[in-house]
Amino acid sequence: MSVERVERRLAAVVAADVAGYSRLMGADEVGTLEALKAHRREVVDPAIAAHHGRIVKTTGDGMLVEFASVVDAVTCAMVMQDKIAERNGKATQKIAFRIGINIGEIISDGDDIFGDGVNIAARVENECEPGGVYLSGSAFEQLRGKTEFFFEDPGERELKNIDRPVRLFAVRSAVGGRTETAALSPPSRPTPPFLTSPRSQCCRLPT
Amino acid sequence: MSVERVERRLAAVVAADVAGYSRLMGADEVGTLEALKAHRREVVDPAIAAHHGRIVKTTGDGMLVEFASVVDAVTCAMVMQDKIAERNGKATQKIAFRIGINIGEIISDGDDIFGDGVNIAARVENECEPGGVYLSGSAFEQLRGKTEFFFEDPGERELKNIDRPVRLFAVRSAVGGRTETAALSPPSRPTPPFLTSPRSQCCRLPT
Repeated sequence: MSVERVERRLAAVVAADVAGYSRLMGADEVGTLEALKAHRREVVDPAIAAHHGRIVKTTGDGMLVEFASVVDAVTCAMVMQDKIAERNGKATQKIAFRIGINIGEIISDGDDIFGDGVNIAARVENECEPGGVYLSGSAFEQLRGKTEFFFEDPGERELKNIDRPVRLFAVRSAVGGRTETAALSPPSRPTPPFLTSPRSQCCRLPT
Repeated sequence: MSVERVERRLAAVVAADVAGYSRLMGADEVGTLEALKAHRREVVDPAIAAHHGRIVKTTGDGMLVEFASVVDAVTCAMVMQDKIAERNGKATQKIAFRIGINIGEIISDGDDIFGDGVNIAARVENECEPGGVYLSGSAFEQLRGKTEFFFEDPGERELKNIDRPVRLFAVRSAVGGRTETAALSPPSRPTPPFLTSPRSQCCRLPT
């Protein structure tokens, strides 16, 4: 058996970044940074801690977070987006995050994590609309019957540098109160066509 | 958010049992028990420990094992089956295990684990030929490019008490030296038709 021994584990990987970060920074550098730090301090970090996540790394406008449970990961992401949307309602400097979630067998090296499970999470996040939470098909499969969220299925996408199409799912709150977040900050790319496509299906999974 | 808080985690769940256990016990109770205990002591338990698995529970002829990594789980299972086949070659009392592997978001309660991730592992194991290792599609998805095994794809199966069809994959050693184990102990049910079906595909996954 010539399988190389490395430290591996199954994990839910969450990639998040700020939609239109460069544009926001260009318009108001200090205000954007202050708003971002306030979201981190008052919403993001407490939500991650409450849902047993671990911040693996942060970049200027993004972060990579690992959870042992995909239910915890998606619940945390939805709590974050709901609270940020609420805060944005009162704020002058409105910041919207994109969040992508995948599950995968990751490789662990010290505090950092690697592997296509991580890369796919980042690509799924790239596809996500501002204020939204997108899942890969693998993450979705493990959520069946385990949450009260709804899932919208835009079908498969070809993701950059991923050798096979990845099925995506958009997570929606049962109360349907989150659609206004999509309009907060114009997406840096055209709104994905599936959002109004007749192929879209919004389904309540069996519980 | 009315999602109930329970302790959850992603895990690779391995279900194993002895093929034709009742028949073996009926024919030679003491010899079967002794052979089984020797396999446990000399092969099964050391392999599980070496691959960082945790024995969740044992029954007379079976066990449930949890791994953080599906690569570790499948490598452990294949090591076990290879060593048991080798020992059976010299033994008068030949014992063959069936092994099923699934990944799932399991619920943890003390030392025990629950959830459809566990149920599906047990059902996948039921489908497995004696001496073999079968995976669910979810487990297979996380192995792409991460091992040197081959995978045979019998397609989807309807599994008892599982509300959706589950895709199965049979794991094969790269050396192809394990086919004789299937003949060790006649299966307690007819050999699944896919083993000779033209629909079968044996594929080397991209590495």
